[in-house]
Amino acid sequence: MTSTVEISPAARRSAELEAEITADPSRFRVLTGDRPTGPLHLGHYFGTLHNRVRLQRQGVELGLVIADYQVLTDRDVAEDLEGHVITLIADYLAAGVDPDEAMIFTHSAVTALNQLLLPFLSLVTVPELQRNPTVKDEIAHSRQSGVSGLMFTYPAHQAADILFCRANLVPVGSDQLPHLELTRTIARRFNDRYGPVFPEPEALLSAAPLLLGTDGAKMSKSRGNAIMLGSSSQETARLIRGAKTDAQRHITYEPGTRPEVSSLVLLGALCSGRDPVELAGSIGSGGAAVLKAEVTEAVNACFAPLRARRAELLADPGYLHQVLREGNARAEERAEATLARVREAMGTVYGASR
Amino acid sequence: MTSTVEISPAARRSAELEAEITADPSRFRVLTGDRPTGPLHLGHYFGTLHNRVRLQRQGVELGLVIADYQVLTDRDVAEDLEGHVITLIADYLAAGVDPDEAMIFTHSAVTALNQLLLPFLSLVTVPELQRNPTVKDEIAHSRQSGVSGLMFTYPAHQAADILFCRANLVPVGSDQLPHLELTRTIARRFNDRYGPVFPEPEALLSAAPLLLGTDGAKMSKSRGNAIMLGSSSQETARLIRGAKTDAQRHITYEPGTRPEVSSLVLLGALCSGRDPVELAGSIGSGGAAVLKAEVTEAVNACFAPLRARRAELLADPGYLHQVLREGNARAEERAEATLARVREAMGTVYGASR
Repeated sequence: MTSTVEISPAARRSAELEAEITADPSRFRVLTGDRPTGPLHLGHYFGTLHNRVRLQRQGVELGLVIADYQVLTDRDVAEDLEGHVITLIADYLAAGVDPDEAMIFTHSAVTALNQLLLPFLSLVTVPELQRNPTVKDEIAHSRQSGVSGLMFTYPAHQAADILFCRANLVPVGSDQLPHLELTRTIARRFNDRYGPVFPEPEALLSAAPLLLGTDGAKMSKSRGNAIMLGSSSQETARLIRGAKTDAQRHITYEPGTRPEVSSLVLLGALCSGRDPVELAGSIGSGGAAVLKAEVTEAVNACFAPLRARRAELLADPGYLHQVLREGNARAEERAEATLARVREAMGTVYGASR
Repeated sequence: MTSTVEISPAARRSAELEAEITADPSRFRVLTGDRPTGPLHLGHYFGTLHNRVRLQRQGVELGLVIADYQVLTDRDVAEDLEGHVITLIADYLAAGVDPDEAMIFTHSAVTALNQLLLPFLSLVTVPELQRNPTVKDEIAHSRQSGVSGLMFTYPAHQAADILFCRANLVPVGSDQLPHLELTRTIARRFNDRYGPVFPEPEALLSAAPLLLGTDGAKMSKSRGNAIMLGSSSQETARLIRGAKTDAQRHITYEPGTRPEVSSLVLLGALCSGRDPVELAGSIGSGGAAVLKAEVTEAVNACFAPLRARRAELLADPGYLHQVLREGNARAEERAEATLARVREAMGTVYGASR
């Protein structure tokens, strides 16, 4: 793979897209989402959620898929989907997603979206599906029994997510570029074979800040090293107090050589709107204890309103269900309109003119 | 593969099933169908269609899927789907399928059926899909570009066809037993993981008589060696006149050593309700010319009513479309009910009790 060659034009194009969004946000429709496997943490917030809210506030139309079927790609049974779906919606809304403008929906409720998987699978080959990095990884690391058919086909299902609502913009990290490339291929092939139905969506590369977990590994709820959106002030303080640092007393911002300390500095900087180098310098010989106290304060101050709103939302599950019902209804309406165009273009509407 | 070991119990079980059908046909629901790639020929008629009509007349509920998406498993674009779908329905009805009792539908119209592909794909692994003989064949013979994702996943889509209407009986040739085995696996795994929703459908082996094309190869419309259900008497006469025979004048029924002559004898026998050995003996030294004349007469006499009815049906496409519309509506209703049970069992109905 020539990823270094590919990333550079993608980054350049993303900068152009940002300018185009500023100039005319109404031209853009974003589709993104999450698997409902648990509540979101600060890594999610600064990595993607923050960016989604920013795009929506700029005036871009936002679609958020809660990929409940995709939970089954790497496990047999999805536990407590109901709870995870509702918590995810609370996380979205608490972070500032406007449910009157955004379309929040679950895969399992949007039947016409799922049907698109069939024609889309006819447009890709098995080797093309195998070439997807996530699928490739899963195949390489899967136990003897092999990856599931759902994991194998998920790049085509993802194309259905994006194309059913005719999204033209997909915020991605650079590791996800190949996924979007397959969606673009599917859109192009469909249009070539059956006539112009789909836009070719573009990647909006977002430079997600690298926040590590409190043990220095990747932030992940299941590792217990993550500060959650919904963590209390006390939990936040406890987690940061126990965070791994290093043997050097003097605090600096050097992500390459001092990843744990730098991640804490970065978190404090993101939460306080300061520059990480400046923040580190202001602490200097204060050492890890001062750093941790400042970061704790910054996180708790930054997330206090979000956390309060989140608690309110979770106290009213009826409202969260209503948001989902409305989002599902809008998604189904969109999906049915797109499927009708797809069926028409493919010549599978029989006797329509009779 | 231990196919010789497997076939034998399947044949035994099929004999039991035939007795059970005779005793209480209302217990059985059959799902079978065709890809709409062209009109049906006499090989289809005596191989499957005849058997379907027999089952329906015995009182078994019959579902017929016109697998329009599956046309795309081995070609890029499906040509004249509309024409092929309508001709297929005419072939079905002319052959005696009762549209008031049977549910005739197209894949593309039954959205909730197609959604079942998603959970079903989570229940099978890539190696299990690869092991399907048809998929394996396609992978072995495919050009460099590889088989399509739709071909690869079609055993799981077939499971959706069968299970969406809770069919418990699938007429198959012995080569199709592995397909049904995957459907049974999917039903079993779903029930194990989520609770009892699906019956485990059983195979009804049908001993399809081997009718060769007029050139001695497999009967196939595209080879021009097939007598079609809709062939005229004149076309039938011309095709049989030109049929390949062999150098021996004396007519006998020896499929193993005289395949072409025996296939003609068999066709005549099937059409006239005579025993092939007796029929061959009655012609004897009359030779190929007499054989061909008798077979032509038998075919044309046997199929005259079907052909007349077929011509009437094709003259009224509005009616054929209505049959399809009604079948699609019934299929969608069934599929929605099944999908609702599936979603309930999987825990993907959110806020249902609120």
